[in-house]
Amino acid sequence: MRDEPVHDQPGVKTGDAVEAPLGFVTYAANAGIKDEDLDLSIVASQMPCVAAGVFTQSRFAGPSVVLCRRHLENGSPRAIVTISNNANVATGAQGERDAAELAALAAKVIGSDAADVLVASTGVIGRPYPMERIRGHFQGVRMPQTADFPSVARAIMTTDTVPKLASTRVGGATVTAVAKGAGMIEPNMATLLGYVVTDAAIPRDEMEGVFKRVVDVTFNSLSIDTDTSTSDTVLLLANGAAGPVGKGEFAAALGRVCGSLVLQLAADGEGASKVIKVTVGSARDYAQAKRVAKAVVNSPLVKSAVHGADPNWGRVIMAIGKCSDDTDILPEAVRVSFGDLEVYPGPLAREGLGQLSEVMSSDMVHIVIALGVGEATATVWGCDLSAEYVRINADYTT
Amino acid sequence: MRDEPVHDQPGVKTGDAVEAPLGFVTYAANAGIKDEDLDLSIVASQMPCVAAGVFTQSRFAGPSVVLCRRHLENGSPRAIVTISNNANVATGAQGERDAAELAALAAKVIGSDAADVLVASTGVIGRPYPMERIRGHFQGVRMPQTADFPSVARAIMTTDTVPKLASTRVGGATVTAVAKGAGMIEPNMATLLGYVVTDAAIPRDEMEGVFKRVVDVTFNSLSIDTDTSTSDTVLLLANGAAGPVGKGEFAAALGRVCGSLVLQLAADGEGASKVIKVTVGSARDYAQAKRVAKAVVNSPLVKSAVHGADPNWGRVIMAIGKCSDDTDILPEAVRVSFGDLEVYPGPLAREGLGQLSEVMSSDMVHIVIALGVGEATATVWGCDLSAEYVRINADYTT
Repeated sequence: MRDEPVHDQPGVKTGDAVEAPLGFVTYAANAGIKDEDLDLSIVASQMPCVAAGVFTQSRFAGPSVVLCRRHLENGSPRAIVTISNNANVATGAQGERDAAELAALAAKVIGSDAADVLVASTGVIGRPYPMERIRGHFQGVRMPQTADFPSVARAIMTTDTVPKLASTRVGGATVTAVAKGAGMIEPNMATLLGYVVTDAAIPRDEMEGVFKRVVDVTFNSLSIDTDTSTSDTVLLLANGAAGPVGKGEFAAALGRVCGSLVLQLAADGEGASKVIKVTVGSARDYAQAKRVAKAVVNSPLVKSAVHGADPNWGRVIMAIGKCSDDTDILPEAVRVSFGDLEVYPGPLAREGLGQLSEVMSSDMVHIVIALGVGEATATVWGCDLSAEYVRINADYTT
Repeated sequence: MRDEPVHDQPGVKTGDAVEAPLGFVTYAANAGIKDEDLDLSIVASQMPCVAAGVFTQSRFAGPSVVLCRRHLENGSPRAIVTISNNANVATGAQGERDAAELAALAAKVIGSDAADVLVASTGVIGRPYPMERIRGHFQGVRMPQTADFPSVARAIMTTDTVPKLASTRVGGATVTAVAKGAGMIEPNMATLLGYVVTDAAIPRDEMEGVFKRVVDVTFNSLSIDTDTSTSDTVLLLANGAAGPVGKGEFAAALGRVCGSLVLQLAADGEGASKVIKVTVGSARDYAQAKRVAKAVVNSPLVKSAVHGADPNWGRVIMAIGKCSDDTDILPEAVRVSFGDLEVYPGPLAREGLGQLSEVMSSDMVHIVIALGVGEATATVWGCDLSAEYVRINADYTT
């Protein structure tokens, strides 16, 4: 089952080994929002960028998301400032003023217009920022002339237990990305927070399309718990300092770092002990393949069975069956395997159940489904459901 | 918050106090499918019935469901035979033959055609019935001339911890119902298993419409874990022995017993310690109200917060926000309360959080949402998410 190490992708560096693209500098500090850990960070390019973003589709999208959309449309964004541990969502007009002020404070530090700063935030919903503390902190901030992405990755964490970051090379350029996840994760056009920066020169008119396609098969193919955050934001900044690279090569590099982050996010899902990867093939189209794959990876009964390595493969059948509008799925055409072990159509002999339980004990459980309808394929990632998930979330704010 | 006792509805008897309608007899026994508990049951009318059913919409609907649909269309069903602990699903052609044989065995015992018997089954997916054991058991079965609904309710249980049953009076007639639930519960036109029998005389052409409307606001408004069973079946048999009753009165009586069962099912959801009731008002239409209410009652983060009485009301905001296609929902028009305690728009003062935590410690937590869009209302029921749910489902078959 260990068909790929959970964290590594070919050609991708992770953790403290990540490389920084040319012309990007970072800041990370504690501003008193968390007790003592890093909670405020800035990623800034020293030169103009082209930028793209994909965001939550929540009806309660927070002021940070609203501001990002506006600045991407009207400004020339070259920096991202992030507050963690407070989402600044459901905070009304005050929340909008606070987001704008945060952009202005960061702009002053990096020497740009407020319209060139993107804002992201993550944490508890419904509490205003402690603006006095934030203002006080910014009085002492001087922007470093160096990049420390591991610290940025740490500063954007909430219930994450490890920082998530990755970098890869494309031509003479570097693509570097950080993300945070853990809970409230079923991104709908984006994940909680993910930033990709590169010194590749990417034409503005190509960037958005490439980025959206990559996000769709990476961040948007991840689900920890079916809950969609109000703050989901994935941003891409390219400053061109390393010159142009091929479009196809760039898309592949973007896919590698985003793919690595998705595996890191799945492995660190709240309470997770295993990554679940679901591949659905021979579907009518990509949308159908992904719908069925999501039904399986999101099923609390499948997730619980994987957690306990209980060879209860019938729950995968149940989850496929939930896609009741897909009337072209015929039970007699469907095949289900765990890794290489086919479980349906079976019946799996009694001794096979022991083998299945062993396969399900791996730290990456790969469920492979053939629908027998068409030729499309999709892969999604998630994690098991543990008692620890409940413990974390039954007692989060208090 | 205890705006209604979890189990009781006005005019409804539950538990051993339930009354039986005239002309119905029952059988319940252990046939060796469970170790020693009741696992085989028959409910039969001594005279012809009019019957209706609503079923799972799963693409993997089991042979029992397929047989019920056929017999409801072609036969004059007057009995229901149930096997628990084995769903007989994903068992191929053998499963279809076994379901037909089970109907024939029961028909012989009650002296009817096989086409007059409905079959239901619940339990592990993907294992054939132990037919030799079942055939052997049936050789000794004599149908009692009495009704014992508490035993039937017990015989259809799987991970349920208590039997669920209810009865009410309408005119000179009695409406009696049993159900089982616990896990894999987000009925889509039905719940796992629920049988309603009555001696009221109901015209065949009225029955189906009334039944479907009641099921929609009761069984179909319940979600334990978003997973839809392959075996969901709710059946209604009316033998007319007590003569006619008013249509409106009958619908109300049906609503009372089904409503009582839904509360019993929610309270006994796998691992549940609390019932969550979500009412969404001022919606555009019933469908929107129910969609938003389901998003809230199904959110694992809302369910976990309720479990821990964590006053993290922002998660309700998040869950409403997930309904991203409902573009007429405007954050500034929405109001959210827990019982009588408004939490949004807030901000809820710090001291209010303690009060909210207290409200959330009740065994029935009522979340009330006003969308500010239109005039429709819907109520749904679910339960909290506990570590116990994971424990039960990480180790079910082994």
